[in-house]
Amino acid sequence: MPVNYHPAAEALPVAGVYLGTVEAAIKKPGKQDLLVVKFDEGSRVAGVFTRNAFCAAPVQICRQQLAQTSLVRAWVINSGNANAGTGLQGLKDAQAVQSAVASVVGCKPMQVLPFSTGVIGQKLPVERMVSALPGLSFNKTWVEAAKAIMTTDTVHKVASRTVQTYQGTVTVTGIAKGAGMIRPDMATLLAFVATDARLTESALQLALKTAVAGSFNSITIDGDTSTNDSCVLVATQKVGLGDVRPDHPDFPDIQAAIASVMLELAQAIVRDGEGATRFITLEVLGAESIEEAKTVGYSVAHSPLFKTAAFAGDANWGRILAAVGYAKVPNLDLSRVSIYLDDLPLIVGGEPHLDYTEAKGSAVFAQAEYRIRIGLGRGNAMACVYTCDFSYDYVKINAEYRT
Amino acid sequence: MPVNYHPAAEALPVAGVYLGTVEAAIKKPGKQDLLVVKFDEGSRVAGVFTRNAFCAAPVQICRQQLAQTSLVRAWVINSGNANAGTGLQGLKDAQAVQSAVASVVGCKPMQVLPFSTGVIGQKLPVERMVSALPGLSFNKTWVEAAKAIMTTDTVHKVASRTVQTYQGTVTVTGIAKGAGMIRPDMATLLAFVATDARLTESALQLALKTAVAGSFNSITIDGDTSTNDSCVLVATQKVGLGDVRPDHPDFPDIQAAIASVMLELAQAIVRDGEGATRFITLEVLGAESIEEAKTVGYSVAHSPLFKTAAFAGDANWGRILAAVGYAKVPNLDLSRVSIYLDDLPLIVGGEPHLDYTEAKGSAVFAQAEYRIRIGLGRGNAMACVYTCDFSYDYVKINAEYRT
Repeated sequence: MPVNYHPAAEALPVAGVYLGTVEAAIKKPGKQDLLVVKFDEGSRVAGVFTRNAFCAAPVQICRQQLAQTSLVRAWVINSGNANAGTGLQGLKDAQAVQSAVASVVGCKPMQVLPFSTGVIGQKLPVERMVSALPGLSFNKTWVEAAKAIMTTDTVHKVASRTVQTYQGTVTVTGIAKGAGMIRPDMATLLAFVATDARLTESALQLALKTAVAGSFNSITIDGDTSTNDSCVLVATQKVGLGDVRPDHPDFPDIQAAIASVMLELAQAIVRDGEGATRFITLEVLGAESIEEAKTVGYSVAHSPLFKTAAFAGDANWGRILAAVGYAKVPNLDLSRVSIYLDDLPLIVGGEPHLDYTEAKGSAVFAQAEYRIRIGLGRGNAMACVYTCDFSYDYVKINAEYRT
Repeated sequence: MPVNYHPAAEALPVAGVYLGTVEAAIKKPGKQDLLVVKFDEGSRVAGVFTRNAFCAAPVQICRQQLAQTSLVRAWVINSGNANAGTGLQGLKDAQAVQSAVASVVGCKPMQVLPFSTGVIGQKLPVERMVSALPGLSFNKTWVEAAKAIMTTDTVHKVASRTVQTYQGTVTVTGIAKGAGMIRPDMATLLAFVATDARLTESALQLALKTAVAGSFNSITIDGDTSTNDSCVLVATQKVGLGDVRPDHPDFPDIQAAIASVMLELAQAIVRDGEGATRFITLEVLGAESIEEAKTVGYSVAHSPLFKTAAFAGDANWGRILAAVGYAKVPNLDLSRVSIYLDDLPLIVGGEPHLDYTEAKGSAVFAQAEYRIRIGLGRGNAMACVYTCDFSYDYVKINAEYRT
């Protein structure tokens, strides 16, 4: 069960976006495991992808295509098979799927972006996927789309916002999947966000980059950066008359809506992390840079000792201290470090706080959701890192994933 | 049960070293939890310590004392309490223990080095420790000493070597402890090694640094660098007539014996890692530097997904690939990467090897001990990283550590 997350039963449609799902027998029978998202002509797409050197075939293709054009007509996403670690054959397979989807949509193959998620190292079942495509009927909802891309997720993830602009009402809706191998590096496992705003290419890139930094690039479940991380944002250009450039008065509000949808999706991924029983926000303040703040946050968030203590609800704060201490912040002045559990002072001025008691600490750690605030006393930068605990079920899920 | 490790029932005494253990009621009743190691005058000590910024009080004291003199007369080690995260009070407590031990040994307080291991953030029970000291009788064996410093270790760790030199027979004996919070950074949790060789201060430093790099600084259990890591080496100057400087003909053999003892102890710590059921060597070849090789090895060794697959005996090699891929080796040329499971080719020239089968991979992963060889094809540097798997018991041990 995800931690404090109840997936929405519906989400707002986005003008110019058409969703189709089908059963392609990639996963077990009875599962919709192939999603095609079709866009009206003129839609623009920006994307960020994993920095894993062993990135999957579809990631390589997406990067190449988007370097040539942002005018994209479709995304094709399969679950059940990551098409990663598949060498040259993997590239050929992804291209075959691209071509087949292009025929269905009526566009060039390079206007189709492929995405895959699932087991690494197995050949993509191209024939089953291609022969399933005629069954698509582009009348599905975002919730149905979100369900078709799930792997070890226990619930679907979808988020929607509207924002009133001078151009009219802009809608932003997104879906995401992922529960393990989550420590995105410039993107998350798979996230697809759509808006009907008339964002220009530069506005689209800026909005995506800003939103990803504070959302998908601020979460971790297990520290494992996937081979397939991809986050793409489409703007179908349907609302309003004029182009929304980064200096347009509507841009900040539209960007905020996009960032808000992505943060909700990113947090949903952590809340539904494999075996997660707690949702923990690590808020690092007083850092010299955002990067430094994130480094400290991730150091705690990746500590198996902290994560297992969190699972047990044991306020074993020495493990927080140790993880802050090994984050390699150069010349960290311990006498300026403070640590609060929610609003409970634990370490102030580098010394244990006199009012702290085991009972008070345990009350914070007993909650399903809490915040650990770490002050470094070095500068003005801050960042949040969102993570979950490490339970028996994480081991169980990942020990038994393929068996 | 440790993986392929049967602790020695006895170890060679080292001339000039006297061992005393006593029950100081730091841990549960009935446990010898305080060890004092006494040296004859003239003994020289070198040490390496954790780089964790929140290093424990005894670590701070050891660093200060060793910067002033290598002429040490005693080590005092307690288990059950790490004296870390204890602020200024922690320093005062460690100094009180130092002074009391100095009275027993008959030396200056600054000639006593203190070490602590156990729970972080609790006040050291100084009075119980000081009042237990008169009970010491310095007639204990290395095995008894090794047992007195255990915490979550399931077995004691001790190793001995002799080496024939121009100066006579030199003995090296060491003990170590640690099973969790193990990802040493310049040292391990606690390791104490003694030799009777006449090593000079510079020879001692060089021998320690070299041995630690290939042993304690090449292991990881959970990626958590402790606040208390300490590895010290004493040379009691008993064997032979002349000083052994780094250019002495005996130095290489003595250094090799020290390195061999440390490697055995370091591997013993991994074999007895919390919840460990497998012992895995990650051998990284063809790197541009030893540091790069270690980075790649640690990237795999710290991956919870790899570690849980290893626990299950599931050759889910995509997780190895992913972890190599996110190690951030700059401009890694995948077409030169190779991965072997023991001698089984898995990836050659960046492509899956045609002879690889699930059955063959599973046969390697079914073993309690195996080697994964990762060739980067970039240079001539290599390094080994030793690690264990991640089991239900790791979560259990660390969720229940304080309860």
